[in-house]
Amino acid sequence: MKENKYADPSFFRQYEKMLRSQLGLEGAGEWYVLKDMLPDFTEKNVLDLGCGFGWHCRYAIEQGAKSVIGIDLSEKMLEKAREINKLKGIEYFRSALEEVTYPNQTFDVILSSLTLHYVESFDTIAQNIYKWLKPGGQFVFSVEHPVFTAEGTQDWSYDTHGEKQHWPVDNYFIEGRRNTTFLGENVVKYHRTLTTYISCLLNSGFKLKKVVEAQPSEEMLKQFSEMKDELRRPMMLLISAEK
Amino acid sequence: MKENKYADPSFFRQYEKMLRSQLGLEGAGEWYVLKDMLPDFTEKNVLDLGCGFGWHCRYAIEQGAKSVIGIDLSEKMLEKAREINKLKGIEYFRSALEEVTYPNQTFDVILSSLTLHYVESFDTIAQNIYKWLKPGGQFVFSVEHPVFTAEGTQDWSYDTHGEKQHWPVDNYFIEGRRNTTFLGENVVKYHRTLTTYISCLLNSGFKLKKVVEAQPSEEMLKQFSEMKDELRRPMMLLISAEK
Repeated sequence: MKENKYADPSFFRQYEKMLRSQLGLEGAGEWYVLKDMLPDFTEKNVLDLGCGFGWHCRYAIEQGAKSVIGIDLSEKMLEKAREINKLKGIEYFRSALEEVTYPNQTFDVILSSLTLHYVESFDTIAQNIYKWLKPGGQFVFSVEHPVFTAEGTQDWSYDTHGEKQHWPVDNYFIEGRRNTTFLGENVVKYHRTLTTYISCLLNSGFKLKKVVEAQPSEEMLKQFSEMKDELRRPMMLLISAEK
Repeated sequence: MKENKYADPSFFRQYEKMLRSQLGLEGAGEWYVLKDMLPDFTEKNVLDLGCGFGWHCRYAIEQGAKSVIGIDLSEKMLEKAREINKLKGIEYFRSALEEVTYPNQTFDVILSSLTLHYVESFDTIAQNIYKWLKPGGQFVFSVEHPVFTAEGTQDWSYDTHGEKQHWPVDNYFIEGRRNTTFLGENVVKYHRTLTTYISCLLNSGFKLKKVVEAQPSEEMLKQFSEMKDELRRPMMLLISAEK
């Protein structure tokens, strides 16, 4: 996460064009699943790790949160967040997630959307999050699915006619750096197994509430025919856990 | 599971030759992981769903279990179990797992090793197991990993030189029947997502204790060079859960 691709102008322009950037949460395919996993925000103190344009911060405030802190490494992201999702109760700060620090039992809810696969040690961040949460506090996050990150190219295997053949999985148990491409740019992500995600949470003291591999809704499948390929392999892993 | 391949003589002869059949638990690659997930058996009433030759039943008794019931669909398996793993306290019964029934709160521990991917509805069996367990009771099981069962051929994708290229994943979210081959015979298995395995357990009321994708130990990797391919994709999923 210390590498900051979102500061690169061409990458940023590409990202801005993505549906999720234009439409906010409703433009994110997994939002309808994640939304169901979120707790009641009324009067809660919330932390969003990797807040991007601040859509989840806005949502938390609109749902009654008392305060929301959004952290991101990208100053560009935060500028945009402050422009389009500036609401009373939200504060945005620039930091690498590895360098964030808070007193014990500060937050009721900690969120992180599609960010933690950029962090090298999930164990460290899971332990920190556990400490920063109040008893009964909720940690809800999404990451790229281990099946999606394992092999490294993050692309289908194609047959000789250029048709998608299947999704390749390789080096599943070899955790660590993957040099991938995202929106035409090189990006470093960290692959880890499902075992690691779940063990780090349980060993930190969390109780698992939900573990969901997001798939497109019936509605999305009807609206976008290319979405049917999303049924062929899991792309995102969503987890909610309680302190 | 109502289809009973283990009754087929040629299939049975192949199975008997496998290391896990010859050596018992020490011949099963995942045993060193599963063993660590098992509870204390002292004075416990144990049920083993899909007991095969009865190695886990024997282990439970040797570890101090009061009684063990081993269920299998295959009379051949049970004959062998009664021959090689006949110990005081173990009873073997023939039944399809879908037809097993017990009074509520009968068992302290319910085991199932590499059997539940033959059962069509994991939801039903998870609910039953929850009922049959006493409060605080443990359910520990292994199944073929969803990454292993999704595409259906249960084989690698090979390049033009016949080298293993990667493991193919496809139709991940299309759950249900897969016509696979095992030891040269056609076998029907049921693919389901990790989401389904975990949701059924949580919705039944279980608390998740461990979720582990078994990988070969350092020792196995040294001893058998072909084992390194087992690091390329997850083959088995092991879960322990508590009522």
